[in-house]
Amino acid sequence: MSADITQPQGGWLSPDQMQGARDQVPLVYLDAIPVRVDEAGVLRQVGLLLRATQDGMLTRTLVSGRVHKGERIRDALLRHLEKDLGPMALPRVPVSPQPFTVVEYFPDPGVTGFYDSRHQAVSLAFIVPVFGDCEPTQSALELAWLDPTEAISPDVLVEMVGGRDRLLRMALAHAGVLP
Amino acid sequence: MSADITQPQGGWLSPDQMQGARDQVPLVYLDAIPVRVDEAGVLRQVGLLLRATQDGMLTRTLVSGRVHKGERIRDALLRHLEKDLGPMALPRVPVSPQPFTVVEYFPDPGVTGFYDSRHQAVSLAFIVPVFGDCEPTQSALELAWLDPTEAISPDVLVEMVGGRDRLLRMALAHAGVLP
Amino acid sequence: MSADITQPQGGWLSPDQMQGARDQVPLVYLDAIPVRVDEAGVLRQVGLLLRATQDGMLTRTLVSGRVHKGERIRDALLRHLEKDLGPMALPRVPVSPQPFTVVEYFPDPGVTGFYDSRHQAVSLAFIVPVFGDCEPTQSALELAWLDPTEAISPDVLVEMVGGRDRLLRMALAHAGVLP
Amino acid sequence: MSADITQPQGGWLSPDQMQGARDQVPLVYLDAIPVRVDEAGVLRQVGLLLRATQDGMLTRTLVSGRVHKGERIRDALLRHLEKDLGPMALPRVPVSPQPFTVVEYFPDPGVTGFYDSRHQAVSLAFIVPVFGDCEPTQSALELAWLDPTEAISPDVLVEMVGGRDRLLRMALAHAGVLP
Repeated sequence: MSADITQPQGGWLSPDQMQGARDQVPLVYLDAIPVRVDEAGVLRQVGLLLRATQDGMLTRTLVSGRVHKGERIRDALLRHLEKDLGPMALPRVPVSPQPFTVVEYFPDPGVTGFYDSRHQAVSLAFIVPVFGDCEPTQSALELAWLDPTEAISPDVLVEMVGGRDRLLRMALAHAGVLP
Repeated sequence: MSADITQPQGGWLSPDQMQGARDQVPLVYLDAIPVRVDEAGVLRQVGLLLRATQDGMLTRTLVSGRVHKGERIRDALLRHLEKDLGPMALPRVPVSPQPFTVVEYFPDPGVTGFYDSRHQAVSLAFIVPVFGDCEPTQSALELAWLDPTEAISPDVLVEMVGGRDRLLRMALAHAGVLP
Repeated sequence: MSADITQPQGGWLSPDQMQGARDQVPLVYLDAIPVRVDEAGVLRQVGLLLRATQDGMLTRTLVSGRVHKGERIRDALLRHLEKDLGPMALPRVPVSPQPFTVVEYFPDPGVTGFYDSRHQAVSLAFIVPVFGDCEPTQSALELAWLDPTEAISPDVLVEMVGGRDRLLRMALAHAGVLP
Repeated sequence: MSADITQPQGGWLSPDQMQGARDQVPLVYLDAIPVRVDEAGVLRQVGLLLRATQDGMLTRTLVSGRVHKGERIRDALLRHLEKDLGPMALPRVPVSPQPFTVVEYFPDPGVTGFYDSRHQAVSLAFIVPVFGDCEPTQSALELAWLDPTEAISPDVLVEMVGGRDRLLRMALAHAGVLP
């Protein structure tokens, strides 16, 4: 069991390679729900990213992405958390490899209620407490920290797509703080 | 959320297609540990399959296999259980999509201790009680039901490959019956 | 590890003894959410008990009760399930001792949102598929099987007390079917 | 849901009161497995306390203790961790109330294999990463940090009593690092 970070050298794929893989098999994905906790470990706030879609719509989303070939799940979690929350977020990846749930995204919304127009993905979902300073990077416009009641208000949930509003409520339920 | 069994029409791949996918991405896999339980739900026996490898070695293994494109995890579980235990096994797939652990198989045994020479796979592991008659099919020579103490005896564990001896002990630990 | 059902001989307490214990320590409780599943293990319906409170109000509730001295958790689960659903319910108690959540009931609703005016209780919560015929016994007037969408409708949730509406939604979330 | 630490004012019991409660009901207990993790969250070391029993025998044990009346589980966890590891240990209590397992201690070792000569206890078990400086307090003579292979060596396991050697291996299994 290596202590080194796994090297996803073969991870980055050209659009053609990506399409080839999508055509053959479900992809391994991750969803991370960034949270702030208090001293006793109680979930106090959830971090939601505000993002503009290609057609200009604003959506709220969670940290999410693909596991590359050659990469361990933990290292993929850290990579996506750093990509979306910046290098100073100090996330604490859970000690157990057991996700709190597994989400199955299909191009057809009717199969599970979770969907992704691009491909089928099997996503391991983790709640990840962060202790440092977050600054949204890349395509995210803003990171908003909301308490559980704010997070599940109808005007927030309506801005989440692909079923992530349900995933958010599942995470709050697992943490024992679903209002 | 469809009640119908998902159709993995695009699931079967030619050897070339399979190799193509393996070269690009980790595969989504399942491990199922078939068990017998008593009336109170206590795990009493574990079902291990005896199989001959291509070079004639006998190995003991668990129910394991790939999730096809277009297929739900639950349906893949049922398909692999039926393939290995026969159509009358009456398996009870767990109500929650949360696996008891996630195993990362790499071609290099040094990364996680779990390995598969063919490819990288991310495997969701479930304990599945079976209530009917099992008859090993396909490549399995025999299905042996062992109580937890027999199952972790050195001469049984030594016949398991790829780290599945560890997975078996992890399953017994999760069920509260690791001796 | 005994295969016999544990004997809660010292389990039944007089009102004075019960009050004495309540004054000193939190009590060990169980909550069981009875469910119907389909062949693939998907939760299709939740069983809610209709009960009249002492002041004549109708409430909907889950299977719930105390673990007796000398009794194993699994045996307490079976005892309460049989008491509330009848002897032909054929419940399948989970193979793992890990509850899907732990609920802390306090006499003060402000501590956790879960409350019981009589005492503090730490309750292990399990989802329990039942496969037989249920007939509510004892104080329950009716057992209603509701699909997830019906179960979380406002007019059902409002009839649940002590925070059990939240527990019900937490169970649906864990099962991956929270609407 | 109060942010304040719950006040276990009624928590401390006289020996007579304690005996009275023990005679009537199972007690609510906690087991915490203190661990060191690396940046990716992988469990690297387990903290075992060395303690002298009343008859002078040396035993290795985990952080363990009772939940007081009026006390939340999280606050009891923090209290026992501080009592055993000192005030600078900086433990990170998990965000979910779901324990990784539940252990049932009986005065009779034959019931579950977990035993406590004093009483029956239902113990919620959590893996707790600690990030600060630990100094064993009270009755503990020493705190030893062992990697998973050292921790399950026969000469360490033989020094653990009441079934805690099994609990330790169950924790390592849940964390994915059982050798």
